[in-house]
Amino acid sequence: MAAKPKLHYPNGRGRMESVRWVLAAAGVEFDEEFLETKDQLQKLQDGNHLLFQQVPMVEIDGMKLVQTRSILHYIADKHHLFGKDLKERTLIDMYVEGTLDLLELIIMHPFLKPDDQQKEVVNMAQKAIIRYFPVFEKVLRDHGQRFLVGNQLSLADIILLQTILALEEKIPNILSAFPHLQEFTVKISNIPTIKKFLEPGSKKKPPPDDIYVRTVYNLFMP
Amino acid sequence: MAAKPKLHYPNGRGRMESVRWVLAAAGVEFDEEFLETKDQLQKLQDGNHLLFQQVPMVEIDGMKLVQTRSILHYIADKHHLFGKDLKERTLIDMYVEGTLDLLELIIMHPFLKPDDQQKEVVNMAQKAIIRYFPVFEKVLRDHGQRFLVGNQLSLADIILLQTILALEEKIPNILSAFPHLQEFTVKISNIPTIKKFLEPGSKKKPPPDDIYVRTVYNLFMP
Repeated sequence: MAAKPKLHYPNGRGRMESVRWVLAAAGVEFDEEFLETKDQLQKLQDGNHLLFQQVPMVEIDGMKLVQTRSILHYIADKHHLFGKDLKERTLIDMYVEGTLDLLELIIMHPFLKPDDQQKEVVNMAQKAIIRYFPVFEKVLRDHGQRFLVGNQLSLADIILLQTILALEEKIPNILSAFPHLQEFTVKISNIPTIKKFLEPGSKKKPPPDDIYVRTVYNLFMP
Repeated sequence: MAAKPKLHYPNGRGRMESVRWVLAAAGVEFDEEFLETKDQLQKLQDGNHLLFQQVPMVEIDGMKLVQTRSILHYIADKHHLFGKDLKERTLIDMYVEGTLDLLELIIMHPFLKPDDQQKEVVNMAQKAIIRYFPVFEKVLRDHGQRFLVGNQLSLADIILLQTILALEEKIPNILSAFPHLQEFTVKISNIPTIKKFLEPGSKKKPPPDDIYVRTVYNLFMP
């Protein structure tokens, strides 16, 4: 049996959390090596383990994958989470790219100045409610299926659920005007592999706290 | 015969220039609808032609594609610019993602405050010389082929060449320490479809000028 994938990243969500979600949804067990000090990062860089000197990095199938999207794409391809043909794949890709733009705001939020954080929550809510959620609400309403694309789980469903749940932590009623997204959230959350990931004790990371923010600053600031 | 793809974007490089490069490299003729006014953008938005209210948007094969990466991926898939198997595809994806991170600095540069622009040229040069170019130099040196991945042209070669040429406009000797990248630049530039795109009169856009910057501000600022 192949070795478990090993994830190299700080002990927090950041850009690695989507990778954890997709592996978990695909039912793949993985190990994690948490970066805590500049020395650890330097060692990975010096050993040529990071193609562009950056994490996330995932050791998988004999490769050392970097760049969040490339990692997600590889796992999605391998585990049939990318649709049944090029047309479905392209829809999934567009939905994922849009959702990642929204998720990026959430990822960067803890690193804003305290004064800017509340303003940014308003901006996020607006972007979600005006730009992104109406698209997915309409898709789900129009085709009447539980998945965003075709009749099976894809990368798009997983990243959207991750993003909705992270937004709900900050804005509990964010889905109030989106009944189909509410239903989607319940249904996708109940897929057994995902249900397990959402339960306590899984490798899902908690919302970023001060320790995480400090670790990231210490690691990546010159 | 299928209709030509139609590109919707301002008359300048920005996030659409990579799409123009890849279509041109694939030998695909395309039309362009240049956005000049807020009314034109509003009309596209009101008509539900922009999935997430944003351009770039490309009408192609009966779809209205958005999100730069998704558009690039679709064209690369369709025209066999994504490697021969999942392993090659994943390498191409990683190389493209890294290069796009560098290209993003170039795309944003004209929108910085004048005082910050010179500093940012230094930052770009450092990123290129320290983080990105050594990776590609080593790849080309080690496998001794003219392409980054496998033995045929891929999305990775095209986006890298675009990025090198855009950087050379600002920093003419940026490749001086990278002989294999110099050779790569000459060889890929001489592929007939690309050679044609590099000649005067093609749909390649000139470096951003004040008119382009003003058009973008007028279009996208609230």
